[in-house]
Order: sequence, then structure tokens, then C-alpha cells
Amino acid sequence: MSACSDQPASLASALQRGALFAANCPSRTVFKHVTSLWGVLVLIVLLAGTHRFSEIRRKVNGVSEKMLAQTLQNLEADGFVLRKVYPVVPPHVEYTLTALGEETARHVYALAELIERSYPQIAALQNAQQAGASASR
Amino acid sequence: MSACSDQPASLASALQRGALFAANCPSRTVFKHVTSLWGVLVLIVLLAGTHRFSEIRRKVNGVSEKMLAQTLQNLEADGFVLRKVYPVVPPHVEYTLTALGEETARHVYALAELIERSYPQIAALQNAQQAGASASR
Repeated sequence: MSACSDQPASLASALQRGALFAANCPSRTVFKHVTSLWGVLVLIVLLAGTHRFSEIRRKVNGVSEKMLAQTLQNLEADGFVLRKVYPVVPPHVEYTLTALGEETARHVYALAELIERSYPQIAALQNAQQAGASASR
Repeated sequence: MSACSDQPASLASALQRGALFAANCPSRTVFKHVTSLWGVLVLIVLLAGTHRFSEIRRKVNGVSEKMLAQTLQNLEADGFVLRKVYPVVPPHVEYTLTALGEETARHVYALAELIERSYPQIAALQNAQQAGASASR
């Protein structure tokens, strides 16, 4: 991939060179940030618009304050999320998707939505496989 | 999400209920399979058509035989990949995307392609942030 070679390259040509998502390739880290459990949820929440920290935390059920702070920090450092601090007491901090963040979030949403929608079919297949495995024992 | 509640539900309503990708939700495992390092690469390779095990291994640079076998086994169990064994010596095994696998692979590809394409911009931002952090020390 471009970050792991001397020249910008398409995904297809990177793949041909075997350079795509090499273990030490930094773009792999970015990909992980947006496909991690909390990364996916935060991106989807922010697709609906600007949120305060506490609002995100309420919508992303089960995330700890520390994990949410880390997730938002990663997404901000990657340029997906803008963090705006209002100088008031108590502090008021808002998070908004950047243009790149919104495009990324739409792709992440589409993938998550497809898996979600297909899950009953996937589970039925897995159950059938398990039943087959049990029957042949 | 549908697998974690009594009723099928859209991603949006699952998110509202805080049921999306709950830690113990099995569809999260499926999502992980298709966004893991080797999962992504195998899906993208198979978008080009049917491949033998050895062909996939050659294109997915750096994957061990064991990891590739595990990745393909997961994708097959989830219904993304069809495995066809020809009864010859030595064994001839072919892997092909299912319809669901192809749809999923297209989404994964689009996301990976976006990250790939945007990486120079992301890296420039990160370098600027680091330079700023160094300058303010």
C-alpha cells in the first residue's frame, strides 16, 4: 500500500505486489481503529450528527469512559473526528465527523448493516453445520 | 442486533436499544472475521474469482499455511466462501465467494480502498500533530 512503498498505488496493485496491509504497515492501524468494536459504534453514532462525550457514551452501551476516550482520541488523530472544546465550566466537548470520517462511517455502516441483516441466514447455516457434525459422530 | 434480541431489527434501531455488537453478540464474531487482517485480504483476492489454496497463499503475502486455513474455515462456516474438493491425488481444493461473500467483499474492499487512498492525508495530519506536540514541549 502507498504508505508501505515508495509510490502511491491502488489497492489492486498493492495487492499484486503483496504490499497490502503488511503487518508493519501503518494504514493497517487506521483500518483497525475504524473496524474495532467501539470504533464502529462511535462512527455510526456520529453519522447522526455532532454529539457530546456523555451523549456518545449513553448511546454506545457498555463502553467505559476510558475506552471511549481512547477510541475518540484515535479517531481524532486519524482525522475522522473533530473535537471542539468550549471554554466553560464544567467543560463542554463536542465531537463531529470530518468529511473523511463521514465517508468512512458510511462504508463501515454499510458493512455492519449487511452483516446484521445477513446474520439470521449465517446463524441458520452454522446451526445446520453443527447439526450435521453431531449427526455424523 | 437481531441475533441478540427477540426480534429482527435494523442496525439503527439496534443501536437505539444499545443492542448493537454487544460484547456477547455472535454477529460481532462474524464482523471480526471479515475485518481481520487475513479475512480482508482473502475476501479481496477471491473477488477476482475462484482460487486454489496455494494461489491464495501466494497472493496474500506473509500468511502462514495454518492462519490461511483458519481464515478460510471461518469464512466458509459463516457462509462467505464455498470450498470445493476435487477427489484427485494430490487433493485439489478450490475456494469461491458465495453471493453473500461477494457482497461483503465489495463493502470490505470499498472501506479498505478508502483508507488506502486517504492514508497519505492521514499520515500528513499525524506528522503535523507530532511536530506540533514536539514544538510545544
